[in-house]
Amino acid sequence: MADVSQPISPEGAKARVLVAGATGYAGALAAQLVWSHPRLELSVITGRSDAGRRLNDLYPRYSVPLTLKELEETDFDEVEVGIVAYPHGAAAPVVAQMRGRGLLVVDLSADFRFDSLPDYEKAYGPHSEPGLLDGAVYGLPELERARIAEAELVANPGCYPTATILALAPLAQAGLLEDVVVDAKSGVSGAGRGGGEGTAFVTITENVNAYKPSGHRHRPEIAEKLGLIAASGGNAEAAPERLTFVPHLVPVDQGELVSCYVTPRRQVGQVELDELYAAAYGDEPFIRLRELPPGMRDVRETNQCHVFPLVTDDRILVESAIDNLWKGASSQAIQNLNLMLGLDETEGLG
Amino acid sequence: MADVSQPISPEGAKARVLVAGATGYAGALAAQLVWSHPRLELSVITGRSDAGRRLNDLYPRYSVPLTLKELEETDFDEVEVGIVAYPHGAAAPVVAQMRGRGLLVVDLSADFRFDSLPDYEKAYGPHSEPGLLDGAVYGLPELERARIAEAELVANPGCYPTATILALAPLAQAGLLEDVVVDAKSGVSGAGRGGGEGTAFVTITENVNAYKPSGHRHRPEIAEKLGLIAASGGNAEAAPERLTFVPHLVPVDQGELVSCYVTPRRQVGQVELDELYAAAYGDEPFIRLRELPPGMRDVRETNQCHVFPLVTDDRILVESAIDNLWKGASSQAIQNLNLMLGLDETEGLG
Amino acid sequence: MADVSQPISPEGAKARVLVAGATGYAGALAAQLVWSHPRLELSVITGRSDAGRRLNDLYPRYSVPLTLKELEETDFDEVEVGIVAYPHGAAAPVVAQMRGRGLLVVDLSADFRFDSLPDYEKAYGPHSEPGLLDGAVYGLPELERARIAEAELVANPGCYPTATILALAPLAQAGLLEDVVVDAKSGVSGAGRGGGEGTAFVTITENVNAYKPSGHRHRPEIAEKLGLIAASGGNAEAAPERLTFVPHLVPVDQGELVSCYVTPRRQVGQVELDELYAAAYGDEPFIRLRELPPGMRDVRETNQCHVFPLVTDDRILVESAIDNLWKGASSQAIQNLNLMLGLDETEGLG
Amino acid sequence: MADVSQPISPEGAKARVLVAGATGYAGALAAQLVWSHPRLELSVITGRSDAGRRLNDLYPRYSVPLTLKELEETDFDEVEVGIVAYPHGAAAPVVAQMRGRGLLVVDLSADFRFDSLPDYEKAYGPHSEPGLLDGAVYGLPELERARIAEAELVANPGCYPTATILALAPLAQAGLLEDVVVDAKSGVSGAGRGGGEGTAFVTITENVNAYKPSGHRHRPEIAEKLGLIAASGGNAEAAPERLTFVPHLVPVDQGELVSCYVTPRRQVGQVELDELYAAAYGDEPFIRLRELPPGMRDVRETNQCHVFPLVTDDRILVESAIDNLWKGASSQAIQNLNLMLGLDETEGLG
Repeated sequence: MADVSQPISPEGAKARVLVAGATGYAGALAAQLVWSHPRLELSVITGRSDAGRRLNDLYPRYSVPLTLKELEETDFDEVEVGIVAYPHGAAAPVVAQMRGRGLLVVDLSADFRFDSLPDYEKAYGPHSEPGLLDGAVYGLPELERARIAEAELVANPGCYPTATILALAPLAQAGLLEDVVVDAKSGVSGAGRGGGEGTAFVTITENVNAYKPSGHRHRPEIAEKLGLIAASGGNAEAAPERLTFVPHLVPVDQGELVSCYVTPRRQVGQVELDELYAAAYGDEPFIRLRELPPGMRDVRETNQCHVFPLVTDDRILVESAIDNLWKGASSQAIQNLNLMLGLDETEGLG
Repeated sequence: MADVSQPISPEGAKARVLVAGATGYAGALAAQLVWSHPRLELSVITGRSDAGRRLNDLYPRYSVPLTLKELEETDFDEVEVGIVAYPHGAAAPVVAQMRGRGLLVVDLSADFRFDSLPDYEKAYGPHSEPGLLDGAVYGLPELERARIAEAELVANPGCYPTATILALAPLAQAGLLEDVVVDAKSGVSGAGRGGGEGTAFVTITENVNAYKPSGHRHRPEIAEKLGLIAASGGNAEAAPERLTFVPHLVPVDQGELVSCYVTPRRQVGQVELDELYAAAYGDEPFIRLRELPPGMRDVRETNQCHVFPLVTDDRILVESAIDNLWKGASSQAIQNLNLMLGLDETEGLG
Repeated sequence: MADVSQPISPEGAKARVLVAGATGYAGALAAQLVWSHPRLELSVITGRSDAGRRLNDLYPRYSVPLTLKELEETDFDEVEVGIVAYPHGAAAPVVAQMRGRGLLVVDLSADFRFDSLPDYEKAYGPHSEPGLLDGAVYGLPELERARIAEAELVANPGCYPTATILALAPLAQAGLLEDVVVDAKSGVSGAGRGGGEGTAFVTITENVNAYKPSGHRHRPEIAEKLGLIAASGGNAEAAPERLTFVPHLVPVDQGELVSCYVTPRRQVGQVELDELYAAAYGDEPFIRLRELPPGMRDVRETNQCHVFPLVTDDRILVESAIDNLWKGASSQAIQNLNLMLGLDETEGLG
Repeated sequence: MADVSQPISPEGAKARVLVAGATGYAGALAAQLVWSHPRLELSVITGRSDAGRRLNDLYPRYSVPLTLKELEETDFDEVEVGIVAYPHGAAAPVVAQMRGRGLLVVDLSADFRFDSLPDYEKAYGPHSEPGLLDGAVYGLPELERARIAEAELVANPGCYPTATILALAPLAQAGLLEDVVVDAKSGVSGAGRGGGEGTAFVTITENVNAYKPSGHRHRPEIAEKLGLIAASGGNAEAAPERLTFVPHLVPVDQGELVSCYVTPRRQVGQVELDELYAAAYGDEPFIRLRELPPGMRDVRETNQCHVFPLVTDDRILVESAIDNLWKGASSQAIQNLNLMLGLDETEGLG
């Protein structure tokens, strides 16, 4: 295996990548993004349910001609990087195995997203590899860039947390979040492939409805991270006192819009609000501050997050749009990987 | 003209109806509903932009074979009822003319929805017929049934107010509304026919975005009515202290879902909440209390409103779904007309 | 059991109906249409997969509050009519059982659609009740009205054959069909509930593709019926020499459009063509001849078939639109049942 | 102005490009593709209706930060290449002006697509620059690669002709086309921006209908080119005897599927058919022969054309899918430009 303790050199060989679980929507897109990346080489793709098929037959839109293998057939010594697109619970042992062989890993599951093991286990059940939690870094580059660059295991955030935390981080850092309502709207691909009747065309078209109106697993992920951001901004007691998160399903394949209604700890004017966001995001390559509310289409199939903050009715509204499969999953994994490998953060992300 | 001061008798002649402005989405549907109504007769339909065309050519799905006339060609003596589907401002003079000739009128515009003339003029500009405001009754049958039955001019509510007020009325009556966020999602037909590029298929499909995030004209209508309901419940000071209303456009032709996030004045448990809603709506023919969050499809092309109240995170969430063209406009007009004519409220509404 | 050998009298009791298989899209709609029918009584609904649930919980949009039973729990003596919405093969024994108890039956499956047993078995495999084939009448009322009125078992046509045969019957009767290409576009509900990944929203939205481009089972049904119509028109040798049928899936929930490209046996002008269609369909309550090509929306949730015939490029184009769940399945079943019971054919079909 | 009589050198400066008419769907996408192209520089974008706005404000999904100018403000000496995205008729004078200043031009309009001036004028009316017709090359690279590489004016094909001609060219070259029916399905963006009520979301969703069922302007373009291909294959008399082309609008924003039903001049088996297509397209970077019918999604936002040929019912069916805005317009323009500039044909096309 190549030595990846140092960044690959600008002129050097491509880093060889294994995508485990390339049959689902997020894994397949990750494979495609690696395939077309100038500094990465897609060496192996695995996926039990469709092993033996070529990825561009399974997803004719993608150009990856590789054949899906079973994970057990894979020789980890042939690659330097693993991207894991398994369901939570199933991901942890695969990540552990890869880390044991020295691979850099980006994990798209929830398994290493939480700082707090109890919070993880409350939401997802027992954790099979708790020892790896400490070394894992939460992969939101706009907030954790330096730590990601040093990390060997990055936990890619959930799609709702990505959009929500990017929407609220400037307010959290300033200690302004008192009470937050997040009304989220998500495209159907967020439910994954094989969703059954609940994601059938006939169920979804011409329809919008809330689901899991209380207890969605992304809520504690959002709450933990906003608390940590507030603490890091020197506002340890300024975690939101109340946070409500209600996701809705909309007839869109890819896309996510979160509408955040914030009661601030003190009155904030539009000018101050704009300055806060400009300071936080003015130089970010993948965040765009908008003068009008963004739509899902504006970020479709990009790694962009568009953010619109507004003072209204003595409250702060922040609308934030991402593509749930791109910035909410697979392209953000590439952004993280670029950082881990010392590449330009935007490489291969258009 | 027939004497309509008394309800038409069960066996009697059909009431003759004029639909003015039958070329837009709401007017055309109102015409169709009158056409298929067992106790109404569709006598005249008007619409300048398509005068001379038959309605079932303009809207091939509808079965109304009548030809659209210009309003000026119409003899008001031939009808007993006028349904007006004009834009605000343009509606008032037509309503005044009809009332002057003794017609019962249901007006689908905003012109007679406000109790307060200043509030109307702040949102919509000068009012040409302020003298008619006093006699107009707000046409939300579930709350104003008795007054509607006596009314000669009914102001049909806006689609957002219908869904929102029905969602929140039980809480308003109990004086529980302290702080309200309404995140509304609307199908595109709410923008009316001829919306231009903003409602083009290419703009809307695979997209969701907020619009008019502050200052939407339905917000003061909602605020006024919730205040009146609170007052009528003996809670004069219990109007919501803060009300935020943010509408979103979703890729759906007909349908509306409002998600109401309420901070109550005191803690409320799920049992008490369910009892409040059951007491308010248990016998309503067009309201269904749901155990799971309703979807727009569940009420599509019906006069139904489905309501789902939930205690979560020390807050109350109420999801409420209607068809914006039906219960949010045209079928609610028929429901009002049934009451005004002394007919069964559900007549002709399937 | 009531005597149904005679039509029910206009003032008489409602006919009691059992819908077997009311959990699928077509069965559930049939149940809803019976429920709202002024001369039918929905007595029992069955469906194994959801037995014990109420239909208006399974399909919140429908108003049927009855609880689904297992077929085995059902007492056939309590009903006069059975509507069977089972898959082909599974339907035949249920139909036989019902006929054995004297019920009038409308079967929505393919099991009794073919005159020719070999043609059926070639397309669908062995038939368990071939003895019932002779007495079954093909339920296309516009062509078989008199025989349906006398029938005790009606085989409801497939959705593609309904749209295609209505498009082509006037040409078949005149012996004009030489070579026919049918390019069909269907909404997704035609694939039934539980279609899996192939009918998932993510698969279907922003997509159109052909499927089963040769060998679709509706092709021999279309071919047999067009041949019989040609023969009945005194054109025994005038069955189409060649018939190609290619179905396409479009991102629509309900709706079907067939585009028929006909090479006629002799040159036909537009005037003659229009006269042929006017003669055939001028008085039909559920067929509308259009001057412009019809769209699926024009017939959505109606029992209508809109037909547009055009001479172009020395060929005849006929576009024909239906709602695949209504005229292509459930509402046509009601139309057939109205005829069988001696009711007005349009009763309960708005 | 740079000398563009010779291809730009692999290491040389980027070619400077003007996109005229960058406010429409095709022009805006062309600008975006130039912007992200490694060997092209987007120097100027023009568009009267939105002059003064930045393109990434007009189309927030695109990353082009340039401000739209009026064409009159533009200095043609600053660029080497013009891409013209004007309506037919309006394009010709702009093309003439650019050619007069020595620019290489790719024109997306119909103005230079026809070899025959009378055929053009029959379909589109008088031509203002007939003198340029002779030098213009039809920009279908898979068929005209060598001539395009030498051309200074390339007429980019229409979207329907692109999909149809690529579907049928192998049969045309072999002189096999006797009778052709083309049933085309197109996404709505093909109608351009500002389509009005006909392309409104409410009109399009849950709908499919034919439009211009005879006389569509792309039919003579298809007919002329298939005739020329047949002639070039030594089959001068083998142009199709009859060609019917019927376009349908489907609820898709971008995408096009054509279903071609061919009566061949002699019987052809599946093996021969597959060999014909493999010989024609086996090495094409942007054509993929499919074993199953392709869907629009498979080629969405790519320059690919997926083709599926099948022998069925003594006929040949060819299904062909493109993205109408990409391979049917803007990305094909880039493919042509790559050839004209001596670059790798796939450069900048992912």
